[in-house]
Amino acid sequence: MNMMQRLGSLAMAFVLAGCSVQAPITLRDMGSFHVGGREAVISGKPVKEVVFTPGGVPAKVDPNGVYQVEQMYVQYFLPHPQRGKFPLLLWHGGGLTGVTYETTPDGREGWLNYFVKAGWNTYNSDAVERGRSGWAMYPDIFKGEPLFLTKENPFERFRIGQGAGSYNKEVARMKVLPGNQFPVEGYDQFTRQIVPRWTTTDEPTLAAYTELVDKVGPCVVVFHSQAGQFGFKVAQARPDKVKALVAVEPSTGGDLSKVAALKGIPTLVVFGDYIEQDSRWPKIKENVIKFLDAVKLAGGNPEVVDLPRLGIKGNSHMLMMDKNNLDVATVIQAWLVKQGLYE
Amino acid sequence: MNMMQRLGSLAMAFVLAGCSVQAPITLRDMGSFHVGGREAVISGKPVKEVVFTPGGVPAKVDPNGVYQVEQMYVQYFLPHPQRGKFPLLLWHGGGLTGVTYETTPDGREGWLNYFVKAGWNTYNSDAVERGRSGWAMYPDIFKGEPLFLTKENPFERFRIGQGAGSYNKEVARMKVLPGNQFPVEGYDQFTRQIVPRWTTTDEPTLAAYTELVDKVGPCVVVFHSQAGQFGFKVAQARPDKVKALVAVEPSTGGDLSKVAALKGIPTLVVFGDYIEQDSRWPKIKENVIKFLDAVKLAGGNPEVVDLPRLGIKGNSHMLMMDKNNLDVATVIQAWLVKQGLYE
Repeated sequence: MNMMQRLGSLAMAFVLAGCSVQAPITLRDMGSFHVGGREAVISGKPVKEVVFTPGGVPAKVDPNGVYQVEQMYVQYFLPHPQRGKFPLLLWHGGGLTGVTYETTPDGREGWLNYFVKAGWNTYNSDAVERGRSGWAMYPDIFKGEPLFLTKENPFERFRIGQGAGSYNKEVARMKVLPGNQFPVEGYDQFTRQIVPRWTTTDEPTLAAYTELVDKVGPCVVVFHSQAGQFGFKVAQARPDKVKALVAVEPSTGGDLSKVAALKGIPTLVVFGDYIEQDSRWPKIKENVIKFLDAVKLAGGNPEVVDLPRLGIKGNSHMLMMDKNNLDVATVIQAWLVKQGLYE
Repeated sequence: MNMMQRLGSLAMAFVLAGCSVQAPITLRDMGSFHVGGREAVISGKPVKEVVFTPGGVPAKVDPNGVYQVEQMYVQYFLPHPQRGKFPLLLWHGGGLTGVTYETTPDGREGWLNYFVKAGWNTYNSDAVERGRSGWAMYPDIFKGEPLFLTKENPFERFRIGQGAGSYNKEVARMKVLPGNQFPVEGYDQFTRQIVPRWTTTDEPTLAAYTELVDKVGPCVVVFHSQAGQFGFKVAQARPDKVKALVAVEPSTGGDLSKVAALKGIPTLVVFGDYIEQDSRWPKIKENVIKFLDAVKLAGGNPEVVDLPRLGIKGNSHMLMMDKNNLDVATVIQAWLVKQGLYE
């Protein structure tokens, strides 16, 4: 039985063990906090008088002063009974927020519910500058301008449609990749999850994720797309605290000069379908594989799962939203069980 | 026994009934969705080539095209057993997000957990342009510029400190209003919750809240500060669907020309402490009372609770975060019970 078959068997065993997604959710606690960030000073700007509400009482707003910037929002759910040995952290990709892991755009349960129901203490965050983390004045504090995505951009770039020109407002006229599992009827809802992004905030984002790992202690990190570099680099900075890495279609690896730090960390890297026929994904995957090869040379043993080879076909880049999203979650869960991280 | 005493008794009865905040949380489901919004078209801008990740594969990003804008994020928690007769909607104030109602800045439980544990189907949202709702290109789509708050601004404006000049980075040197219940040791954490805001997005925000009420059906709305106008105006637009209004220090009332629409809706308005000694709050409260007087003239019966007169003293503008936040929640819960909205 090869690794893929063993994974499949473990996944089936997990499903048969009755971890049904229909079960109610029992929590010891839930809540949120912010980590990281710093203070930044602004000076030399004129004072404004602002009426916050029509007919309201004017307030003087002095834009000069000290701002709190670059913090990161984290929401947590602590299930009962707890079965995951360590907290499980969910880190989303670019232009998105922690909403990535919540309900799917067509209204099914996402990975957050799946892992909470499975008994993992789960921490879902919004990266620095995104969502409930807030964002800072630019170009004064954040450098450069934010980037906004049109409705068609992710459709064509995330291996949902057949590349450039495949998006259409009418679902029936979308040129979807044959067999694609993305719930295209919910694509419009998905575009509501998109938030502006900068490409100049990697450093504070890394700092905030590192602080999160320091705060929660030994943990498992599940990270997607843009968070590829964050997952690998934070593990390189805190190899004693990161007990396993699950990279879901990472857009890049970590720091090539520090691959040895990863050799003792069990690592699973998951790729979906249609990679070869895309204009950018073969190169993205090649870069990631090169990084993983360097980790292997340093004594590590990262495992790459190409889902189609497991018989799980049709996955877009947004695997956690695809119609078979819970099958993919089960592959990850089974691998975590195999690592001895679950009881 | 006057109204205040009756409220107190009901609150005590509710506490004695065993709705302890230490109990675990059992949910039938939890999840999120976005409502509202529209498509906006941008044209005439140059195409950019963007490297999203250091060393990554460049992607062409054409900023021209169709954008999804002005949607609103909503996260829901459906408890078991359900005891509230209708969904309870939590709407936050200006420059903030739904984080307002989650864990307090010093790590205690917020109103979200309180109402979920009490058995209310609870929907916590981020207003349009805030948090996980995302924001749109400006001045192309959103008009005007965003407003950022310095760390000292809310301290001085939200009746935590003694007005202008009362903030200090060192907690020991803060000039706090005597007896204030805001957890000043968590003030720094509170400032991490602040997000940029516009003053030009009231219309899309109203539209999104109205769509939320249409989606969830008959409901109770708890709304704070800036959301004063949103709570009252949405109730005026949907008087058949809003079964009760709880205005928590609303910064304004609703539409004076439509007060009759509110006459059949049970309404509670809650104010904290230090109103009279503040530079702006006497006028803000006076405006709200004028609006409520107009509702009364039209046949309505809104109830105003000044917490200090109930013996609940020291509340800042952020009542849901104050050290006695659950006492204030109990006043609201007791009032909802009295309205027959709980079983």
